[in-house]
Amino acid sequence: MIAPHADALIGHVRANRERYVEELKAWMAVPSISAQPDHAADVRRSAEHAVARLRAAGFTQAEVLETDGNPVAYAAWLGAPGAPTILIYGHHDVQPADPLELWTSPPFEGTVRNGKLYGRGAVDDKGQCLMHIAALEAHLRVNGKLPLNVKVVFEGEEEIGSPSFEAFLAREKEKLACDVVVVSDTAVFAEDVPSLTTSLRGLVHWEITVHGPAADLHSGYYGGIVKNPLEALAQILAALKDAHGRVVVPGFYEGVRELSPQERADIAALPFDPAKIAHELGVTELGGEPSRMPLERAWFRPTLEVNGMYGGYQGAGQKTIIPSFARAKISARLVPHQDPHHVKHAVTTFVQRVAPRGVRLEVEAHGDTRAVETSRDHPAVAAAARAMELGFGKPPVFIGTGGTIGPVSSFDRILHLPQVLIGVGLPDDAIHAPNEKFDLSQFFGGIETMTYLYDELANALR
Amino acid sequence: MIAPHADALIGHVRANRERYVEELKAWMAVPSISAQPDHAADVRRSAEHAVARLRAAGFTQAEVLETDGNPVAYAAWLGAPGAPTILIYGHHDVQPADPLELWTSPPFEGTVRNGKLYGRGAVDDKGQCLMHIAALEAHLRVNGKLPLNVKVVFEGEEEIGSPSFEAFLAREKEKLACDVVVVSDTAVFAEDVPSLTTSLRGLVHWEITVHGPAADLHSGYYGGIVKNPLEALAQILAALKDAHGRVVVPGFYEGVRELSPQERADIAALPFDPAKIAHELGVTELGGEPSRMPLERAWFRPTLEVNGMYGGYQGAGQKTIIPSFARAKISARLVPHQDPHHVKHAVTTFVQRVAPRGVRLEVEAHGDTRAVETSRDHPAVAAAARAMELGFGKPPVFIGTGGTIGPVSSFDRILHLPQVLIGVGLPDDAIHAPNEKFDLSQFFGGIETMTYLYDELANALR
Repeated sequence: MIAPHADALIGHVRANRERYVEELKAWMAVPSISAQPDHAADVRRSAEHAVARLRAAGFTQAEVLETDGNPVAYAAWLGAPGAPTILIYGHHDVQPADPLELWTSPPFEGTVRNGKLYGRGAVDDKGQCLMHIAALEAHLRVNGKLPLNVKVVFEGEEEIGSPSFEAFLAREKEKLACDVVVVSDTAVFAEDVPSLTTSLRGLVHWEITVHGPAADLHSGYYGGIVKNPLEALAQILAALKDAHGRVVVPGFYEGVRELSPQERADIAALPFDPAKIAHELGVTELGGEPSRMPLERAWFRPTLEVNGMYGGYQGAGQKTIIPSFARAKISARLVPHQDPHHVKHAVTTFVQRVAPRGVRLEVEAHGDTRAVETSRDHPAVAAAARAMELGFGKPPVFIGTGGTIGPVSSFDRILHLPQVLIGVGLPDDAIHAPNEKFDLSQFFGGIETMTYLYDELANALR
Repeated sequence: MIAPHADALIGHVRANRERYVEELKAWMAVPSISAQPDHAADVRRSAEHAVARLRAAGFTQAEVLETDGNPVAYAAWLGAPGAPTILIYGHHDVQPADPLELWTSPPFEGTVRNGKLYGRGAVDDKGQCLMHIAALEAHLRVNGKLPLNVKVVFEGEEEIGSPSFEAFLAREKEKLACDVVVVSDTAVFAEDVPSLTTSLRGLVHWEITVHGPAADLHSGYYGGIVKNPLEALAQILAALKDAHGRVVVPGFYEGVRELSPQERADIAALPFDPAKIAHELGVTELGGEPSRMPLERAWFRPTLEVNGMYGGYQGAGQKTIIPSFARAKISARLVPHQDPHHVKHAVTTFVQRVAPRGVRLEVEAHGDTRAVETSRDHPAVAAAARAMELGFGKPPVFIGTGGTIGPVSSFDRILHLPQVLIGVGLPDDAIHAPNEKFDLSQFFGGIETMTYLYDELANALR
């Protein structure tokens, strides 16, 4: 059912598309990299930028809220007494931009090429936050009001695992009280395949430092009598999996469930061509456990990945040393029913156990994000499906994602709230990588989807 | 036998010690890093600096000689017709200085602390070159002449494997003609254990790049379906050795001989305390093949070491990616009778063979330095032993070194010349590492040794 005033709203958001793109560029120009402490002031500037934009959209209540870490941009419009209240979640922090030399245009200067806006944060997640701001603004300008009460929370630490968000939620429980959480930080399955996400993986990570000699040593004098930390690190990392890509850490798979025949059939029905995907990614073939379907591996199997590794000489030419240390950053994506604490402990213990003699290990474990499964049967999810059909012209499919949104886990665990995961990124958006982009057709379709969404939710939750 | 005029010479070099230290600092201030192309002009400046210093010492023939790479500093004094001719070899290029943050004082500002001169090139090899310049200058100033003909060659590419030196030797064969080569680029066995080196290891190296996806990927979306290049690299490196530290590459040990009972006994007689060495190096215990003596491993067994490794995110915090590539720099130290070409081919083939599916490998092999054994029985070696006894008050022992001096291999192969390896560095000099140093007592003892050496060689080779 289309709300009667929808035509005017859609006309409004279509007429303002160019402005939305310019506004997104302006926000992207703030390098709000939460992982890098020297960008802390930029993250704050980004929160202030969002608050100012929400005020301009018509939110009289809009403010920067402090957390134990980076600030949250918050706004509320509570002018619909008796109507339901939704909380819209997004994040205004971004991933680091390096390696800088691989960007075609500067990461913090949003640049449109072939109908796509390139730059860090274009789709993850400033662009998706702005879809809501644009849609909310349209309602407020065209109708002078929203069809339901809205609270907006744009977080500043999502890309580093939301370390302060749970405490923030617990503290601001009353201020953030709502009926449903709407999260727009996900992607659709493919272009022309509108999708709603109903499962997300969790995330924990480690930094492993292998300490060898007190200083770098000459590999001629000491080669053969001192254990090489780089060699030790390679041996430790190689010991984590068997030849079939299965993690051999005892207890790692504890709680992981097998899919039902129906779930397998649903996955098999999705359009997925491994050879085509491999070609697009630039690899010779897909990897991972060969006994399982690729989408099962990506959505419903935990991973253990090396995200970064370094030690010794990395410059031009050769420097014949045994280095004093080697370091790896590794992380695990968790699936429902895996306990983050248990996994952190299991991997830490295993790594210490398989470390060769002659080196000293330092292992730091971080993160605490459980996987989440949301209900497909909640009326808010049905409302979101209708809004997406109106916005993109096709009913959405239900999918999982291999990604992690820590706050979804926190809303689940702390506030026990139903959640709607409605995002419109594309799988090839290169989020977390050089040349991140947002297809403008997805951006504009997303704005229209959100424009419908508030009416649909108001009706469904009444 | 001490030459009759030795007292005056020794008096001269003792009176000028402070000046020698200042002169060494001035030369060290030229960052002649041959591995880094942006320091090519500094390497040339360093050659010019050496030529100027040799002229000041009294060499009227002194010039920069071009090679296909970095220039050589050359000088000759041929005023003793009928007397033998020696060629003194050293090198004026140095290793890179990074990691810079681990230096206590700036690497290119020589700084004396507790009787040791700290800085890049202090002992490897500018300081050891300057021992000869000081000793030659003493003869020329005190006596107005040298006891034999001397040619000096200070090379500019030793630290990158002397890629141009063999062609230079072949081309300048007549200019460099001599009876014996004297090389001062080695260390003694320990403080108070004067030593002459009679075997050196060779060196070849590789750069291995593991290519994965065309761009860094989000480890949530693609974790489980794309082979991680860092993981692949760890698996490749871990496959190179067995649990006992033995290289498993087929053919790697081809030609390697076992030591004779006498050689083993000689090694066992040297003062070597593994626990003490481990403590000094800051490791819990020594590493390597446990079935062999540490000094056998360091001098007479080949190695395969990872010198550097990198890929993915190395900054603060966490970036959850599957990186597009991973790279390792590895090198092998070779022992007598191993063929560098054979070893390069064997490792390259093995690495390609053990690479997991889903990644693409690029392997570059470099270097061509064979191991060398010099004769203990040549009269020049006996002369060097007498000079060292005079310089340090104790007869030297004969030792091997795990290090590599490419030119020693070239003098052996191209000019078939007897060589004397007479160096005075200490094992803890941290060459190739942060805080390289030269103990001034070794520097001054070395200058006195060289002051005696020319007379001893003149007598022995007459």
